[in-house]
Amino acid sequence: MDDRPIGVFDSGVGGLTVFRAVERALPAESLVYLGDTARVPYGTKSPATVARFARQATRFLRGHRVKMLIVACNTASSVALESLEEQAGAPVIGVIHPGARRAAELSQTGRIGVIGTRATIDSGAYSAAIRSLREDAEVFSHACPLFVPLAEEGWGADGIAHQVAQRYLEPLRQARIDTLVLGCTHYPLLTETIGQVMGRSVQLVDSAESTASEVRERLEREPGLAARPSPDGAKHRFFVTDVPQPFQEVAERFLGRPILTEACILGSREELE
Amino acid sequence: MDDRPIGVFDSGVGGLTVFRAVERALPAESLVYLGDTARVPYGTKSPATVARFARQATRFLRGHRVKMLIVACNTASSVALESLEEQAGAPVIGVIHPGARRAAELSQTGRIGVIGTRATIDSGAYSAAIRSLREDAEVFSHACPLFVPLAEEGWGADGIAHQVAQRYLEPLRQARIDTLVLGCTHYPLLTETIGQVMGRSVQLVDSAESTASEVRERLEREPGLAARPSPDGAKHRFFVTDVPQPFQEVAERFLGRPILTEACILGSREELE
Repeated sequence: MDDRPIGVFDSGVGGLTVFRAVERALPAESLVYLGDTARVPYGTKSPATVARFARQATRFLRGHRVKMLIVACNTASSVALESLEEQAGAPVIGVIHPGARRAAELSQTGRIGVIGTRATIDSGAYSAAIRSLREDAEVFSHACPLFVPLAEEGWGADGIAHQVAQRYLEPLRQARIDTLVLGCTHYPLLTETIGQVMGRSVQLVDSAESTASEVRERLEREPGLAARPSPDGAKHRFFVTDVPQPFQEVAERFLGRPILTEACILGSREELE
Repeated sequence: MDDRPIGVFDSGVGGLTVFRAVERALPAESLVYLGDTARVPYGTKSPATVARFARQATRFLRGHRVKMLIVACNTASSVALESLEEQAGAPVIGVIHPGARRAAELSQTGRIGVIGTRATIDSGAYSAAIRSLREDAEVFSHACPLFVPLAEEGWGADGIAHQVAQRYLEPLRQARIDTLVLGCTHYPLLTETIGQVMGRSVQLVDSAESTASEVRERLEREPGLAARPSPDGAKHRFFVTDVPQPFQEVAERFLGRPILTEACILGSREELE
């Protein structure tokens, strides 16, 4: 048994989909969420900069004595995961491996598509993970930069999103994939549109659920699950590096309920000046 | 005469449109550009966070002994301008006032539209500036969050951009404005689309040119223009806080020529860790 909290880190609000899946799978666990909303998005930035931001987030969550760190951001998982374990002083789980594993298991033909931010796709992390799990897999990747702002505008299910999706996904349709990984935590908000464009024969993989399963497996080995939930439930905390005007609204769209957020600063205190 | 450089600060690459206009208007001046590409965009962030980032940028440019600071970012101009002058140790010029002045002069009917990021529009800065210059003005504002990613995708002139523009601009069409301020440095890349949707009777104001005129006027008063250009031209420097993969391409689309960029970090040295 280990009642310390689990840390969940994302560039912004998207990781709340992972938070939610972990909370459902493991209701006894306390979670500390950190969204780097002051510097979001990570998907358009360089690997070196994303890795630096991820190190600062890890330092912050280590200060909260987390027993495990979930990197709920595809971009950060794709460029920085390996370097974080030592700094975290705890096991680190990203969202790439669970999503890749699920896709490798689900696909009949081995023709697997991956969509994500420019940084995630350019890293080749999904492609490498899928092929390490399944040698015969052919992976087709495509960056879809407009999907995040469309999701944040609340336009994920309308005509404009449909046309954008048709343009981005046409190469994947032509490649006759049978499984598509939604390699960005925002993309589940476009599931309906993406599903319509790809057709019913293509299975969509949202890595939030598979990440929650992997977190459970890993925790059972070590450092151990939390004791049974107390009558008033697990205690969660939500930290963000910025609280812009529409933040609560967007966060609630992802989490499905209101939350109380606390402000924090990453990097040094001098940044406050 | 004052041969010290002029500092130009933006959240990313968009301010290069202002850089370019100033360079054309004042070819003898040396310019130091700073794009905070590690934390771009500012338009979705809170006033307090944007103000903090702007103070860090000002400190950096002061270190380069600038004789004037141009805040080439509409969002930063709208929330942080007044607080920067003391810290800059030099006159500070934003892009809001020049754009507002131009619109107030151009409009026949006084019905003026403004489009920009969520943060710029929510600040009400354009509306206040226009009405302080022209009491009879009625200002109609609308945030257009998808315009920046459309411009960065290079999709500013196609069918999807046209539909997005129709949706965002419909309330401004109905308001029968005769002048529209492009209150974001990215929007000139959508000029054609915005012009088609608004129709020929609406004049578009791009604040880059008007900012360059205001910079010249202000410099002539004090601290003074640079001496004549040397035979090999003015010396410019370009600093960015991150150099993501497609940066050069996007930067060249804005500036119209290749540039050599230098990396820098804002905030403290500890952030490097």
